[in-house]
Amino acid sequence: MDRREFAKLSAFALAWTGLPSYAQIPALSHNPVGYAAIGLGSISDIFMRACAQSQTAKVTALVTGHPDTKGAKYAAMYGIPKTSIYTYETFDRILDNKDVDAVYVGLPNSMHCEYTVRAAQAAKHVLCEKPMAVSSRECRQMIDACRQARVKLMIGYRVHYDPTWLQAIQILASGEIGQLQSFQGGFFAQLPAGAWRLTRKLGGGGALMDLGIYPLNAIRHIAAEEPTDFTAVLATRDRGGRFSEVEQSMEWTMKFPSGIVASCGCSYGQRGPSFLTLNGEKGYLVMEPAFNYDGVHLRGEAGGRPIDQPGAGKLPFQFTLEAEHFASCIRNNTQPESPGEEGLKDMLAIEAIYKAAGAPIA
Amino acid sequence: MDRREFAKLSAFALAWTGLPSYAQIPALSHNPVGYAAIGLGSISDIFMRACAQSQTAKVTALVTGHPDTKGAKYAAMYGIPKTSIYTYETFDRILDNKDVDAVYVGLPNSMHCEYTVRAAQAAKHVLCEKPMAVSSRECRQMIDACRQARVKLMIGYRVHYDPTWLQAIQILASGEIGQLQSFQGGFFAQLPAGAWRLTRKLGGGGALMDLGIYPLNAIRHIAAEEPTDFTAVLATRDRGGRFSEVEQSMEWTMKFPSGIVASCGCSYGQRGPSFLTLNGEKGYLVMEPAFNYDGVHLRGEAGGRPIDQPGAGKLPFQFTLEAEHFASCIRNNTQPESPGEEGLKDMLAIEAIYKAAGAPIA
Repeated sequence: MDRREFAKLSAFALAWTGLPSYAQIPALSHNPVGYAAIGLGSISDIFMRACAQSQTAKVTALVTGHPDTKGAKYAAMYGIPKTSIYTYETFDRILDNKDVDAVYVGLPNSMHCEYTVRAAQAAKHVLCEKPMAVSSRECRQMIDACRQARVKLMIGYRVHYDPTWLQAIQILASGEIGQLQSFQGGFFAQLPAGAWRLTRKLGGGGALMDLGIYPLNAIRHIAAEEPTDFTAVLATRDRGGRFSEVEQSMEWTMKFPSGIVASCGCSYGQRGPSFLTLNGEKGYLVMEPAFNYDGVHLRGEAGGRPIDQPGAGKLPFQFTLEAEHFASCIRNNTQPESPGEEGLKDMLAIEAIYKAAGAPIA
Repeated sequence: MDRREFAKLSAFALAWTGLPSYAQIPALSHNPVGYAAIGLGSISDIFMRACAQSQTAKVTALVTGHPDTKGAKYAAMYGIPKTSIYTYETFDRILDNKDVDAVYVGLPNSMHCEYTVRAAQAAKHVLCEKPMAVSSRECRQMIDACRQARVKLMIGYRVHYDPTWLQAIQILASGEIGQLQSFQGGFFAQLPAGAWRLTRKLGGGGALMDLGIYPLNAIRHIAAEEPTDFTAVLATRDRGGRFSEVEQSMEWTMKFPSGIVASCGCSYGQRGPSFLTLNGEKGYLVMEPAFNYDGVHLRGEAGGRPIDQPGAGKLPFQFTLEAEHFASCIRNNTQPESPGEEGLKDMLAIEAIYKAAGAPIA
């Protein structure tokens, strides 16, 4: 997606009246926020490409265990000086790097806490990937560390910034589907043997941690309340060895104080649609695909008319919008739309779901 | 749908190789099976229209509390002699009516048992609507009565006979989506105040009895095993009075001995998609709409290729196929594909789901 396409998309997002303020695209600026990308895996690769399309967010430093190979490659791609390539050992010196305003934590889940805390101690703002950490205890540590250091903390719930998602929320807010009654959702993938997400040490848990969190977060976010009752069942049908440390699949239900109910599924060992339904008393919305990097498709019936809205924007646009939102928060000293507290709430729900399934974590 | 369209559809159904034998369309016959329609509500209206399109199934008698109005109207429409119109009081005399081979029980749920037993005692075969009854105890009574009377008993799981559903089962059997891992499904409607389904006396339960039974039955049917573990949550957000006797909404999970898991939702007080996902290790199928009278749409990915198959056939074609299947069973003395035992298994699961939700029935 080039800058022109992106401007079109931004205009599209703004065309929806009554959008929450976080959806406002920040004004172009000649003073972009500088990010240090921590961990140069596939998610950071996307994040860096996303920043390359932005005029308000820029990757200005790298943190990697492979400074001479991966580090040198990305430094060349994005014009990052050699002096701004850090290892995990030298990371804390980033305190002195005036080109770095914030870090992007794209590490395995169990490393999120340590690097968020160390970044805060180095006086850098933190944009951390989901899941925020591997326990609510860690999430609280991260929130405390950022509060003490007076830096901002945001969790990378990228679909919060996708205009198609914002449109769904807008339709809901218009009253056209009536009072919300229930949700159903799911997110599924086939992970290859050897993936770090299949280890308890790095992943902290199974499919619920990394895929189930999408419908979980979307439902909490849209319902705008916290679930209080959970039931869950986990299953590992594939006995080939991939799932010796974490669950393959999880299905669960949630109930909210208002009476809204939900059921969801997720798996690291199956194919399936990425979907979410929003069922109201007068109409409903279906997002499918819902949680993909692009192509989010909104269907349903609202206000008595059919809805069929293919998603605008192409990978990595959700990440660009996310990076620019946090950049705007930093420049304007405002609260991110998806702060650390949002990550903590998801983690509390994840712990409750594992507990309901009879397999409490940590 | 005229006869020509229907023949086309039958040919379509037969074109799928390896279809289970129950999908074989019975040969045309000059000796159609005669049905007595018991209860002349909207579902029986559809059933009678369905038989009017068949050459192997025919409505030859009526049972109604309103013989002079509703009875006379349908008798005129379908050429039924006045002597073949019964009331609930005179029903047992149907024993002597040689034009009646079977009954179609289209009554409220709590009357299914009584009229199935009475029909069996009158030596008539029974095609009974789902849910089979309002308790597993009643289901067993019905099975016993039919066995003792040596008549056949079939439950009206109409989607078992829809060619699009058969196509989904065929794709699954081909191995193209690999080993089944999970299902997600839902069926939702807004029922008007005063509907008999909202009373415990006639409905026997809420949304699970009449709508939730669709994904429940489909999943049991496709998994070809019985769920053993259930979790469930029910909710009644609408406090307007419609739901004073039965639940508004239910979400539940199921686990099967093989490790297959599922989550489902249903409601009498919301709009939502009618859907079912079949997630496999290599591919997946989505039916949406899944449980409608027509237009069942099959999508997904199987054998590495996209699937997008809009449903053939128009209302009341599923009922025609169902009526003809039972007619064929009667003429050829074979076992129906969805016998009473299938209804009993659903009812046992329904009882387990209500129990898991903390609201056991009966």
